[in-house]
Amino acid sequence: MNFVKPSEISVTRGPLPASKKIYKKGKIHKDISVPLREISLHPSSGEKPVNVYDASGPYTDDNVTIDIQKGLPRLRESWIKNRNDVEQYEGLTQHKNFKPNSKNAVPDFPVSHQPFRAKKGKVVTQLAYARAGIITPEMEFIAIRENLGRESVRENFVKDGEDWGAEIPLHVTPEFVRQEVALGRAIIPSNINHPESEPMIIGRNFLVKINANIGNSAVTSSMDEEVDKMVWSTRWGADTVMDLSTGKNIHNIREWIIRNSPVPIGTVPIYQALEKVGGIAEELTWEIYKETLIEQAEQGVDYFTIHSGVRLPYIPLTAERVTGIVSRGGSIMAKWCLAHHKESFLYEKFEEICEICKSYDISFSLGDGLRPGSIADANDKAQFAELETLGELTKVAWKHDCQVMIEGPGHVPMHKIKVNMEKQLNECGEAPFYTLGPLTTDIAPGYDHITSGIGAAMIGWFGTAMLCYVTPKEHLGLPNREDVKTGVITYKIAAHAADLAKGHPASKERDDALSRARFEFRWEDQFNLSLDPETAKLFHDQTLPKEAHKVAHFCSMCGPKFCSMKISQDIRDEAKKGMEEMAQKYRTSGDLYVNKE
Amino acid sequence: MNFVKPSEISVTRGPLPASKKIYKKGKIHKDISVPLREISLHPSSGEKPVNVYDASGPYTDDNVTIDIQKGLPRLRESWIKNRNDVEQYEGLTQHKNFKPNSKNAVPDFPVSHQPFRAKKGKVVTQLAYARAGIITPEMEFIAIRENLGRESVRENFVKDGEDWGAEIPLHVTPEFVRQEVALGRAIIPSNINHPESEPMIIGRNFLVKINANIGNSAVTSSMDEEVDKMVWSTRWGADTVMDLSTGKNIHNIREWIIRNSPVPIGTVPIYQALEKVGGIAEELTWEIYKETLIEQAEQGVDYFTIHSGVRLPYIPLTAERVTGIVSRGGSIMAKWCLAHHKESFLYEKFEEICEICKSYDISFSLGDGLRPGSIADANDKAQFAELETLGELTKVAWKHDCQVMIEGPGHVPMHKIKVNMEKQLNECGEAPFYTLGPLTTDIAPGYDHITSGIGAAMIGWFGTAMLCYVTPKEHLGLPNREDVKTGVITYKIAAHAADLAKGHPASKERDDALSRARFEFRWEDQFNLSLDPETAKLFHDQTLPKEAHKVAHFCSMCGPKFCSMKISQDIRDEAKKGMEEMAQKYRTSGDLYVNKE
Repeated sequence: MNFVKPSEISVTRGPLPASKKIYKKGKIHKDISVPLREISLHPSSGEKPVNVYDASGPYTDDNVTIDIQKGLPRLRESWIKNRNDVEQYEGLTQHKNFKPNSKNAVPDFPVSHQPFRAKKGKVVTQLAYARAGIITPEMEFIAIRENLGRESVRENFVKDGEDWGAEIPLHVTPEFVRQEVALGRAIIPSNINHPESEPMIIGRNFLVKINANIGNSAVTSSMDEEVDKMVWSTRWGADTVMDLSTGKNIHNIREWIIRNSPVPIGTVPIYQALEKVGGIAEELTWEIYKETLIEQAEQGVDYFTIHSGVRLPYIPLTAERVTGIVSRGGSIMAKWCLAHHKESFLYEKFEEICEICKSYDISFSLGDGLRPGSIADANDKAQFAELETLGELTKVAWKHDCQVMIEGPGHVPMHKIKVNMEKQLNECGEAPFYTLGPLTTDIAPGYDHITSGIGAAMIGWFGTAMLCYVTPKEHLGLPNREDVKTGVITYKIAAHAADLAKGHPASKERDDALSRARFEFRWEDQFNLSLDPETAKLFHDQTLPKEAHKVAHFCSMCGPKFCSMKISQDIRDEAKKGMEEMAQKYRTSGDLYVNKE
Repeated sequence: MNFVKPSEISVTRGPLPASKKIYKKGKIHKDISVPLREISLHPSSGEKPVNVYDASGPYTDDNVTIDIQKGLPRLRESWIKNRNDVEQYEGLTQHKNFKPNSKNAVPDFPVSHQPFRAKKGKVVTQLAYARAGIITPEMEFIAIRENLGRESVRENFVKDGEDWGAEIPLHVTPEFVRQEVALGRAIIPSNINHPESEPMIIGRNFLVKINANIGNSAVTSSMDEEVDKMVWSTRWGADTVMDLSTGKNIHNIREWIIRNSPVPIGTVPIYQALEKVGGIAEELTWEIYKETLIEQAEQGVDYFTIHSGVRLPYIPLTAERVTGIVSRGGSIMAKWCLAHHKESFLYEKFEEICEICKSYDISFSLGDGLRPGSIADANDKAQFAELETLGELTKVAWKHDCQVMIEGPGHVPMHKIKVNMEKQLNECGEAPFYTLGPLTTDIAPGYDHITSGIGAAMIGWFGTAMLCYVTPKEHLGLPNREDVKTGVITYKIAAHAADLAKGHPASKERDDALSRARFEFRWEDQFNLSLDPETAKLFHDQTLPKEAHKVAHFCSMCGPKFCSMKISQDIRDEAKKGMEEMAQKYRTSGDLYVNKE
């Protein structure tokens, strides 16, 4: 592999069409400044701009200077320092060399920051603050962000949705955020060593979030591509990014990603630990794993996937599965357990892991190492046995003031999805659920963003707080830039469809604005309000490229005579002139019209 | 527009990879020969070939000579004649000239067939036969087809699904087909003038079907493209095709399509009627419409979308909608009703329409002209008022022995989907439901195959019998060939996910076969079993193109060391050696392993 020089790294930036970054100020914490994307509409609409959630960070603000060599501004650093519960120290990175001996190695990140950790006896998690009744700047930031800039609820707002027992407020207050975190029903992944990240929340009483997986493999892809994919995925709406890199350059690739990431970064630390023992699972040790956790904690990883639920007793349950164990981390630990015929150290040392997480505020993402890898294996005993253990570990983590979410499947046919959500809520005390898909059929490799987008929308509706995307390349290869975008857009659709169905008070405004634009033939507004304005415009222009057609009262689908919207508008115009009067006349003399009420 | 010469029309044909067409013989009707696609697996698998439903007709059988100039073999003609209830006559086409005066007109189809119609006093619908206790060749053909070639149910088969009150048999018999048709719960669209079509059934106790819309518009596209799109869409799995062409060449385009179509063809006759009055809705008359119905009946259209439920009294209910009336046919009729201030002739003359349909066996697809065009308008009073009228008309059609299905929305958020299905079953006496999507959000033009694929999978699960596809171009432009394929594959996913969730006895076999191939690294088998082998292979090869990688026990996603499936296989191999014994030992001495039972 050949890596480009760091100076050559380029990422896509600048605002999306008709959009500008706006910032809302805090009231409790005056220094916070919450970014939103404001989409302006054509003056003819007479409508106000539409504000949407914006995960893209400073990259879409032309007023911010970006330097990939230096990393993003350290937004949260002063908040962290002001709490007076952290100290800086010489971290592992400063006295150990994680760089592989290779001409093609990824270079060190040019700027080095001494890591923070909790002072002795202190717990620096958002959960600890929440339980202590403290509304942190992170919490107020999130409240403003979740309201999409709305100052209050619209008058006469009627909630329309089925939320399956969630408790979604009409308006999110900082105090509500604190309460949800204190209850363990939501998490704010926010390692104190990733102050570049903009606070966000994962919980079923908030907007449904999505995660994008990136990362090189030992076979292909390189660092510059991964930094670009991270920025690219947040541009289209990824709320968190998991760096699943493997291979020799894993430490430095991660450093470049974290320093430039405006969203929380998750990892699966066992991948790097395995790398350190030459890929031989049997040679893994708790000491090597622990060192890896601290190394990543110091770099700023915001959440760790830890497969502590893959216990020795459960492994035989997978022996007759059609697809065995499909989680990489799960299979590595299963192999270790069998080789030593010992219980997993991820389970046995769980409280020690909590000690590390609480010193940096790293959230747990308790991994579903025994998730089903096929329709045939869905909801089997192995899967649910592990889920029960994850429930047990959730309570242990909470005892330590650690934030926790729970990972979920996988491959599940539609009729078996709901019980996954119900069992998770029940076993894990309402800790947030974070699912991969699930894929609702196995017969469409090349389209698994769609097979899984169906399951993701449904489980999101039922209560899953974050959906891990699946790209078209799933099961076939490593996603490229275009696949990442397709995966993100598909999952933004699933998450938004879930928000709508749950009746999230702010979610329908964008649909309505776009529908009005469509009905009024404001083509540019329709493009600009869409999740992917570039593709919408491109598709329109493929058949009617002329600028004149951007104001045309028809499109190539039907042509002018057959355009239902045009006819419908004509009808409405006529209606204004006299249909109502005529209706009134006929209604008086009989029952020609159905009454609207 | 310039049309290619008919001699230049080319369509994609030949079998899909590793597939061959096989034919199963009838037992009641010895001369029927039911096509299936047999996918053979690598000898190393030790597995039998997998049979799948095949809508593609003779185009994928290299032993059949195809001549687009002559049309497909007239498979059903002898069946129709043998019933002795039809007569041939000089149809409208023979004494009227439907060809527009234009140099660029679509040429006449080279072969002319005298149309059939029912002899006086006879009803030639499959419903009439079913009610008379007759098992037609069409019905036996369908029984064999729906079983995917299985001769019987596997021993010890345990049904796994939630079918919401459907009555899906473990094995479909010809008598079961007859009963379902007799009850009006399923239809067999099969105009006696489209003998080229292979019988298929639409009903919620059968496999979920999908429809692809094609057709030119006045603005773009031409005849050769539409014939190609028809063949192309059935190649990927479209069970029926609707020709929604508008413009001057509508008669001849349709003739080319029907003569070459192995699947039922649907139309919306009002489009052509409107064309005949120069696009001015107010000038439509019952006489012009009726002539159009007969013209299309003689050509062989298998089902008509007729918007008889758009009644004058309901139109004011749409006045305050965000997107008014979005059905083309619905808006045309609404305009007519308002202009004349009269009840719709499609409603008033409904029994006359039944008289035409029963003479040719054209199925009704009662159109949802007032379907919602946005999330904001979903499940409103206009929509449901129309549905109640469609229920009333269903009973009228049944009185005439006419086959009926009901069209459904549209744009519906997830939490409002199920009630659509329930209300349809209730109002329309379990006549099959045929829905467009529904789209579950409005914010993703360019991706509406996905926003609607989510809703389609769900409503298919709940009981919708046929799903009308949506392509990525929806709301933006006319779909091209690639869009048609994407729409079809997306909807095959939705239909199959629905079959799985309903617990259709044959549906899971393909998932399981593909999952086994995946787990055993039979890459070619994995590609060949997928809905789109070409794309699956292409995606795999983008990162690992070498032939050697087709047998590699890893892929580019994870590389060899991190491949969970490889590790999982290693575990299984070890298990075979001794894990069970060891488990047994530990189980005896304590409870180290969880018991499988």
